[in-house]
Order: sequence, then structure tokens, then C-alpha cells
Amino acid sequence: MDSAIKEKMKIYFAASIRGGRDYARYYKKIISQLSIYGKVLTEHIADDKLDDHGEDISETDIFERDTGWLKGSDIIVAEVTQPSLGVGYEIALGESLGKRIVCLFKQQSGNLSAMITGNRKLEVLEYTSVEELPAKLKQIFQ
Amino acid sequence: MDSAIKEKMKIYFAASIRGGRDYARYYKKIISQLSIYGKVLTEHIADDKLDDHGEDISETDIFERDTGWLKGSDIIVAEVTQPSLGVGYEIALGESLGKRIVCLFKQQSGNLSAMITGNRKLEVLEYTSVEELPAKLKQIFQ
Repeated sequence: MDSAIKEKMKIYFAASIRGGRDYARYYKKIISQLSIYGKVLTEHIADDKLDDHGEDISETDIFERDTGWLKGSDIIVAEVTQPSLGVGYEIALGESLGKRIVCLFKQQSGNLSAMITGNRKLEVLEYTSVEELPAKLKQIFQ
Repeated sequence: MDSAIKEKMKIYFAASIRGGRDYARYYKKIISQLSIYGKVLTEHIADDKLDDHGEDISETDIFERDTGWLKGSDIIVAEVTQPSLGVGYEIALGESLGKRIVCLFKQQSGNLSAMITGNRKLEVLEYTSVEELPAKLKQIFQ
């Protein structure tokens, strides 16, 4: 992949906001690594000021903005360790649009939904620590 | 709606399994009430023996069975209080298939995802106690 293509790749990163922020430090690392490979449309997910109340714009505006970004993206990378309605919704929406979807799951952190593990259209990458993330993410874009 | 139609209505009830079972007693009440109005395809969600490990069949079999039921259903009723990847996935899949989707949310139990609250294609019904559920569910089928 040459650098011009890399620069144009639009990455939709999906992760829990209102479902809980236990893994926020992983989200930050993932976004900083994904930025090597393309434009991360949802960079605000790493924002420390973003708590489980979410953002100060209307619900409909968030929905329209996020689904618009998702529709325009080239790939969806979803962190699925924290159970989240929004992330599950975004995965199925992306699948219905024929997007490539990669799910990142931190091992030994609970039981992942069969809607993810039993779904052959999704790629699931497991990791055990924040240090492993750069190499795992590199795999996606090789 | 006459009783013959009611008997044939196929209801897909979506609720958290591996996302957590904190609201299992609500799921049981909802399923018993939904059974008044049609055939609940996912009755096993109320099973006390079902913990957050899920069921003893393969992941792919669960995925194929559940999405098959969802595709064949007339209506999706989703309990969305417990954040759950599977429930979010099922809502978006149902939406992509043009299904009617009703989300039940227990008030004051956290912050519901904007993928639900900002989505005009979904109906959201809030409730505050298990006692309120029969009347709320009756509204859906009126």
C-alpha cells in the first residue's frame, strides 16, 4: 500500500462511551496507532473529558454524524471488550453496508457475544496488553 | 387485531446474556407478557440456568439460529437497559431488514446509547418498575 493510499484511508473506530469507560486508555492507544494508517473519523472517543454521559450535542445529531462517518469509512475497527449497545449497532450497520470490520478483544475480560464470535463476516483479533496493540493493528493493514 | 393473527405473530425478544444478567428478572416478566400477544422465539433468554457464559452450543450455531429467528420475526422487542453488543447488533440487523423495533429501557439505570436515542426508526418505551411492564407491553400491540 503506498503512502498516498494510506493517507486517504478513512477508519471508523467504534468503542464504548455510555456503556462504560473502563477501557478508555486502550482506546487512546488504538487511535494513536490507527492514525499511522489513515484518518480516524472518531478521534473524540479517546477524549478524557468524554465520560459515560457522552457529548453535549443532540442525540439525533450524534446519531446522524456517527452513522454518516461510518457509511463513508473504508474500514471499521471496533474495540469490543466493554459490552456496548452502540458498538454492536455499528458493527451490524457496517456489515449490512459490506464494510470490512475488525474487532479487537482484550482476552480474559469476560465473554464476548456470539453475535461477534459466531459471525464469520467479522475478523476478531485478541490481545492481552496495551503493549501488544501496535503489532496487532499493523496486521490489519498489511 | 383478532386472536388468529395474535397467535401467529412471531416476536424476537432481544436482551443481554453475556453482557450481564443484572436484569434477568425483568426479561422473565417481559417474556411472560409478550407470550400473550404472540410466539416468543427467544424464550430461553429468561432461563435461570443461562449465565453470562451463554449456551452449550457452538458460537456459529447460536449466531445462525438467532439471526434466522430475527429474520423470520414480525417484531423485535429489545430490553436495552444492560449494555450489550449482541442486543445492539440485533437492533441494527432488524433495522436493515425493515422490522418494527421497540426498545424497553428502565429509567435511571445509566445512559442509553445515542445509536438508540438518536435513531428515529426505533420506538423507545421507558419504564420504572416490573409492575409497569404489562401496561407498557400492551401499548406495543394496540
